[in-house]
Amino acid sequence: MDFASFLTSLATSFILFVVLMLLFTWLSRKPGNKEVYYPNRILRGLDPWEGGSGRTRNPFAWIREALSSSEQDVIAMSGVDTAVYFVFLSTVLGILVLSGVVLLPVLLPVAATDNVMKSSNNTSKGTFNDLDKLSMGHIEEKSPRSWAFLIATYWVSFVVYYLLWKAYNHVSDLRAAALMSPEVRPEQFTILVRDIPPPPEGKTRKEQVDSYFKAIYPDTYYKSMVVTNNKKVNKIWEELEGYKKKLAHAEAVYAESKKTGKPEGTKPTNKTGFLGLLGEKVDSIEYYNQKINESVSKLEAEQKVTLGEKQQASALVFFTSRVAAGSAAQSLHARLVDTWTVMDAPEARQLIWPNLPKNFYERQIRQILVYVIVTLTIFFYMIPIGLVSAVTTLTNLKKILPFIKPIVNIVAIKTVLEAYLPQIALIIFLALLPKFLLFLSKEEGIPSESHAQRAASGKYFYFSVFNVFIGFTVGGTLFDSFKEIEKDPKLDTIVDILATSLPANATFFLTFVALKFFVGYGLELSRLVPLIIYHLKRKYLCKTEDERKAAWTPGDLSLATRVPSDLLVITIVLCYSIIAPIIIPFGALYFAIGWLALKVYVPSYESYGKMWPHIHSRLVAALVLFQVTMFGYFGIKKFYYTPLILPLPILSLIFAFICSKKFYRFFQATALEVACRELKETPNMEQVFRSYIPPSLNAEKVDEDQFEDAASQVSRSQSFV
Amino acid sequence: MDFASFLTSLATSFILFVVLMLLFTWLSRKPGNKEVYYPNRILRGLDPWEGGSGRTRNPFAWIREALSSSEQDVIAMSGVDTAVYFVFLSTVLGILVLSGVVLLPVLLPVAATDNVMKSSNNTSKGTFNDLDKLSMGHIEEKSPRSWAFLIATYWVSFVVYYLLWKAYNHVSDLRAAALMSPEVRPEQFTILVRDIPPPPEGKTRKEQVDSYFKAIYPDTYYKSMVVTNNKKVNKIWEELEGYKKKLAHAEAVYAESKKTGKPEGTKPTNKTGFLGLLGEKVDSIEYYNQKINESVSKLEAEQKVTLGEKQQASALVFFTSRVAAGSAAQSLHARLVDTWTVMDAPEARQLIWPNLPKNFYERQIRQILVYVIVTLTIFFYMIPIGLVSAVTTLTNLKKILPFIKPIVNIVAIKTVLEAYLPQIALIIFLALLPKFLLFLSKEEGIPSESHAQRAASGKYFYFSVFNVFIGFTVGGTLFDSFKEIEKDPKLDTIVDILATSLPANATFFLTFVALKFFVGYGLELSRLVPLIIYHLKRKYLCKTEDERKAAWTPGDLSLATRVPSDLLVITIVLCYSIIAPIIIPFGALYFAIGWLALKVYVPSYESYGKMWPHIHSRLVAALVLFQVTMFGYFGIKKFYYTPLILPLPILSLIFAFICSKKFYRFFQATALEVACRELKETPNMEQVFRSYIPPSLNAEKVDEDQFEDAASQVSRSQSFV
Repeated sequence: MDFASFLTSLATSFILFVVLMLLFTWLSRKPGNKEVYYPNRILRGLDPWEGGSGRTRNPFAWIREALSSSEQDVIAMSGVDTAVYFVFLSTVLGILVLSGVVLLPVLLPVAATDNVMKSSNNTSKGTFNDLDKLSMGHIEEKSPRSWAFLIATYWVSFVVYYLLWKAYNHVSDLRAAALMSPEVRPEQFTILVRDIPPPPEGKTRKEQVDSYFKAIYPDTYYKSMVVTNNKKVNKIWEELEGYKKKLAHAEAVYAESKKTGKPEGTKPTNKTGFLGLLGEKVDSIEYYNQKINESVSKLEAEQKVTLGEKQQASALVFFTSRVAAGSAAQSLHARLVDTWTVMDAPEARQLIWPNLPKNFYERQIRQILVYVIVTLTIFFYMIPIGLVSAVTTLTNLKKILPFIKPIVNIVAIKTVLEAYLPQIALIIFLALLPKFLLFLSKEEGIPSESHAQRAASGKYFYFSVFNVFIGFTVGGTLFDSFKEIEKDPKLDTIVDILATSLPANATFFLTFVALKFFVGYGLELSRLVPLIIYHLKRKYLCKTEDERKAAWTPGDLSLATRVPSDLLVITIVLCYSIIAPIIIPFGALYFAIGWLALKVYVPSYESYGKMWPHIHSRLVAALVLFQVTMFGYFGIKKFYYTPLILPLPILSLIFAFICSKKFYRFFQATALEVACRELKETPNMEQVFRSYIPPSLNAEKVDEDQFEDAASQVSRSQSFV
Repeated sequence: MDFASFLTSLATSFILFVVLMLLFTWLSRKPGNKEVYYPNRILRGLDPWEGGSGRTRNPFAWIREALSSSEQDVIAMSGVDTAVYFVFLSTVLGILVLSGVVLLPVLLPVAATDNVMKSSNNTSKGTFNDLDKLSMGHIEEKSPRSWAFLIATYWVSFVVYYLLWKAYNHVSDLRAAALMSPEVRPEQFTILVRDIPPPPEGKTRKEQVDSYFKAIYPDTYYKSMVVTNNKKVNKIWEELEGYKKKLAHAEAVYAESKKTGKPEGTKPTNKTGFLGLLGEKVDSIEYYNQKINESVSKLEAEQKVTLGEKQQASALVFFTSRVAAGSAAQSLHARLVDTWTVMDAPEARQLIWPNLPKNFYERQIRQILVYVIVTLTIFFYMIPIGLVSAVTTLTNLKKILPFIKPIVNIVAIKTVLEAYLPQIALIIFLALLPKFLLFLSKEEGIPSESHAQRAASGKYFYFSVFNVFIGFTVGGTLFDSFKEIEKDPKLDTIVDILATSLPANATFFLTFVALKFFVGYGLELSRLVPLIIYHLKRKYLCKTEDERKAAWTPGDLSLATRVPSDLLVITIVLCYSIIAPIIIPFGALYFAIGWLALKVYVPSYESYGKMWPHIHSRLVAALVLFQVTMFGYFGIKKFYYTPLILPLPILSLIFAFICSKKFYRFFQATALEVACRELKETPNMEQVFRSYIPPSLNAEKVDEDQFEDAASQVSRSQSFV
C-alpha cells in the first residue's frame, strides 16, 4: 500500500464517520427514536431528554455526560463489570497518551532527519514513501540514533507497569467496595457444592447435604437446594411461555381490530400444523388458552417429578452470613479432595445449570479436550475453511444441490458467486467463531455464564493475536523471509522473522486500526442497525408492550468478543509504538471513542470484576510480545546495545508474578475482611433462597401474598426445600 | 567386581551382622543397659522386661513385639508421623515381595536358560560370570524372551500403583483419625498469621490483630499472641538454664563427696574465666546461685522489653473451635493477598520462631536463592571438594598451620595423611551435607521444624539419586559410553547412556544394598554406639538424674536423612528389579529389617503425616525413572516391541495427577468434615494459649496454683496477652 492509497483509505473512512455522526445527530433528536438512543435512562425511569434544554437537547450531550458521569454512576447503572471494562479502556488510553506525548515529539524528528538511508527494503513492502520517513525503518543500521528508540522502549514499558499497577489496585478497590456493600446480594450468602458422593443407603440426597453441612456449620447453615435435571421441565416451561406470549399477541391484535375495523373486532386465527402454515384453522385466543391450561398441568406434574426424583450430585448451600459463606467457599470440606468441592456461587441468572452436576474428572477431561480442539483451531483454522471452500465451488454445489442450477446459471449471479464463495465461507467461519468458542468453553463444565465468557474471550484473544497479527505479519512475508534465511542463516528464529516483517506491515495495521474506529465505532455510535431493526419490528411485529420493550432493550456489552478485539488493537499499537510511532494517535482515538461511546450497554451478568486479572495478564503478554519484538528489531538494525532490552521481558515477568501474588487470589475468592462488613438489614434468607429457584421450577399462579405459603407447601410435598 | 569377590563381600558383611546380633543378644540382657535398649518402655513407665519371663526375657522378643504391635500402638506410642514411616516401609516391602514372588521364579529361569549369548559386554564391567547369567544382560538381542521382561515391567508398575494407592488412602485415614481425635490439641485451635501490615497510627500491633480478627470472627475468636523478637531474651534464658544445670551438677558432686570422702564433704570449685580453665577459683554452689539470681532479674526485665517493644509482623491467633481455626487457616482474609497470610499453626515445639515475621517477598527470594544454591550443590558438588582437597595437601597445610610441622613430619603419620586427606574431605562434606541442607531449608523462611525437615529430605533425595545412583552409574561408564557414541551416534541420549551403564553396575548396587542392611541395620539394632556413649557419660559426666536421662533418651527418627536414604534404596532396587531380579530379595530384607527394628525412636515433631505426599511423589518419580530406564534398555536390546513400554510413564503421570487431586490438599489443610467432630471436653483455652508461649518468655518462679494469676498479671503489664 503506498502513501496515496493509505491517505485515500483514511479519508474515505473519515468521511463515512462524519456522515454517520450527522445521521446520528439528526436521528437521535427525533422523539420516536428515544428508546434506541437512551434505553438506559428509560429503563431506569429517567427523562431521556434531561440535561438538554427541553426538546432541543444537544445531540452530543452524551459526550459531556460520559465525561461528567463518575465511576460510581457507571457502577450504579451497569455494575462492576462494566466499570472494570471502562478502567481497561481508560488505562489503555492513558498508556497511549503518556507514551505518545513523549514518543511523538522525540522519535518522529529523530527518524525523519536521518537522511543517510535510501535503500531500505524493510519498510512498506517495496515502495519507499513519506510515511516511512517517520518510522524507525528510516534509521540507519548501527546508528547512535537507535538510543532514542531504546530509551523509548523503556519509557513505554514503565508507563505500562505504572498504569497497570494502578489499575489493578483500583479494580481491586472496586471489587472490594461492591462486595462489602450493605445491600443483600443472594450470591454472597451462597456456595456451590459439586461432586457430592452418592448418598448413603436410606437417605435422600437432600438429607445427606443437610446433615453434612449442619454438622460443620451448626450456627450459620441455612438451607440447601439440590441441583436437579431440569431438561424436561425447562422444555415444558418454555412451551408455556411461548403460548403465553402468543396469547398476549393475539389479544393485542384483537383489541386493535376493534378500534380499526368492526366494533366487535375480528378474532385472530392461526393454523395448528407445521410453523403455523399447515393444518386446521382455529381461533387463536381460545386455542392458546387451552394450550396454556394443558401446559400448566403438565408443568406441575413434571415439577414434582423433577424435584423428587431427578436430584443430582450438586447443590447450592445457603448460609445466614456473608463471612460464613465466603469462608466456606474457600475451605476444604472432605478428606477426599475430589468430593464435596466448593466454590463461590455465581449469580442465579448466570448459573449454567446442566454443568453443575458434572463430575470432577469429567471436567478435567473435557477441559483437556477443549484445549486440544482450540489449539488445533488456532493453528490449523485455514484447513477446514479451505476444505469448505473446495467443496463449495459452484460445480460441486450444483452436483450436491441440483435445484439451484437454474438460478446459478444466470451469468451475473454466477460471476459474483464464483468470485466470492471462498470469502463468504471465511466470513461465515469468522462470524461463527466466537459462538463456537463460547460453546466449547461451556462444554468444559464451567458453572457460570460470565466465567464461560471469560474463557471464550481468552481463546478468542489467542486466536486473533496468532492469526490476525502474527499470522498476517509473518505469513505475509514468510516467503520473503525464507529467501533471506537461505542467504543469511542467522535469521532463523521466530523473533527475527517477526521483527523483519513487522515494519513492512506498519501501514496495513495503521489502516486496520483507523478503519476499526472510524467505521466500527461510527456504526456503533449512530446505532443505525438497531434503529432500523427496531422500527421494522415495531411496525410489523410488536403488538404488546412487552414485545416493544424487547425490541429496543439494548443487548449486553458482549465482553466475550469486545475485550479480545480491543486487546488485539492494543497489542498491535504497542508492538508498533516504537517502530512507527504515528500509530499511537490512532490507537488513542480508538480507545477514547470507545470510552465515550459505550455507556448504552447493560451487561447481563455481574462477576464483580473477575474479568480484570484476565485482561491484565493479556496486557502483560502484549507487552512482552512488544519487548521481544523490539529485541529482534534492534538486532536486525545491528544496534550494538541491543542486549540492554533483555532485562525488560524479565522485568515484565517479575511484574506479572508480583501482581498475581498481590492481587489475584482476591479475584478468585472473597476476602473475609471484606465480607465481614455490616449489612443494612438482616437478610431475608427465604428470599435469598428463592432467588436461586430456576423459573421453570417456580410454582405457578402464586401472587405475592401467598408466596410464603406456597414455599412451605413445596417444602412439605417435595424434598426441594 | 567378579563373582567370587562379590560373594566374599557378602559373606563378610553377613558375618559382621551375626556378630553384631550376638552382641546385641548378650548386651540387651544386662539390666544396666535397659535404658539404651528399652527407652520407650521406661519413658512411658512400663516394665522393660515385660513379655519375657522375668529376667530371662528372650532378647529377640522385640521381633515378636514388633510383629504383634498394631498400628494403633505405634500411633499411641510415637505419633502419626512414625506410623506413616512404617506405612512407607511396609508399602515398599509389599511392592518388593509382590514383585519378587512373580519375577524371581519367572525371570531367573528365562534368563539363565538362554544359552546363545556369550560375547556380552553389557554386564559386570568386562568379566562374564555366574551372577550375570541370572540377569537380563544374558538375554540375546531381539530375543522373544524379552516379552517376559516387558510383561514383568508392567507387573511391577501395576503393583506399585495398587499399593501406593492403598497406602495413600490409608495414610489419609490415619491423618483424619488423628485430626478428629477427641483429644484437645492446641495446634488445632491455632492459626499462624504472617505479613501483618504496619499497625495504624496510635494502635499497638496487639490491638490491631485483635480488632481485625474480632470483626471477622465475633463468636469464635479467642486471643492472639504477637510474635516477638526473642533473640536477646532467649540468650539470657539459655544462660540461666545453663547455670541451673551446673548448680545441680555441683550439688550432686558435693552430696557424693559427703558419702565417699569426709563427712562434711568437699565443696566443689570452679574457675570463672575462659572455659573454666582460667581466672579466680570460686565455690561453685555459691557462684552459680549468685549467677542464677542475676540472670533471673535480667530475664524478667528483658521479658518485659521483649513483650512490649519487640512485637513483629506475625501472630498466632487462637479460636475456640477446631472448625473455626481449620476454616480460618484456609481462607483469604485480606484484599491484598500478600498481607495477613494465614496457615495452620504447627505444634508449639516445632515453631521456628525467627522465621515467622519474615516478609512474603523475602521468603520468595530466599526460596529462589536456596533452590539455586541446592541445584549448584547437586550438580557441582565435586568442585568445592576438589578445591578443599587441593588446599588440604600436606604441603599447603604446613604453610597455613606451621605448628603442625613437627607432628606431620613423622613418616608414618605423613603417609597416612597423604593417602587419606582427600577422602577425609569428602567424608566430612557428605556428613555435613544433611545439616547444610537443613540449614538451607530453614533459611527459606519455613515456619515449622517438621516442614524444614521435609524440605531438607527432598533436597537430600535429589542429591543422592543424582550423585550416588545416576552419577555413579553414568559417571563410571561415561568415558566408555563416549567412545561408544563416537562409534554409534544413535546412543546420544541420557536415557540410552543410563540404560547402557545400569547392567554394568548391577553387582555394585547389589553389594551396596546388602552392606546397607547388614552393617547399617546391624549397628543400629545392636545400638553399640549409643551404648558406649551412654556408659562413658554415666561414668564420667552424669551426676544428676536429669543428666542421666538426657544420656539415654533416644534421638528422634531423623526422617530428614532416613527417608531419602530409604528412597534411594527403593529407587535402586526398582530400577534393577527387571534387569537383575536377584536384587529384589536384598531390598525386601532391607525394608523388612527396617520395619522390625525402628520402634525405639520417638519423633520430635508431629505433623499428622504431612510427610506422606512427599514420599509418595518421590516413589512415583522412582517408578518413572525405572520405566524410562527400561524403555532405554529394551531399546538397546533391539526388542521390536519396546514402544509398548511408553504408555507406562504416561500412566504414572496420570496416576500422580489423580492421587494429587484426590488426596493432596487434605495434607495441606484440615478438611472441615474432620475438624467438626466432637471433643471429649470443652477445651481449656487458656492452656491452649499458654502452650505456645516460648519457655524463655514464661514468667519465672510460678507454681501451678499461681498460674492463672501470673497470666493475668502478664496481660495487665504487657500487651502480650
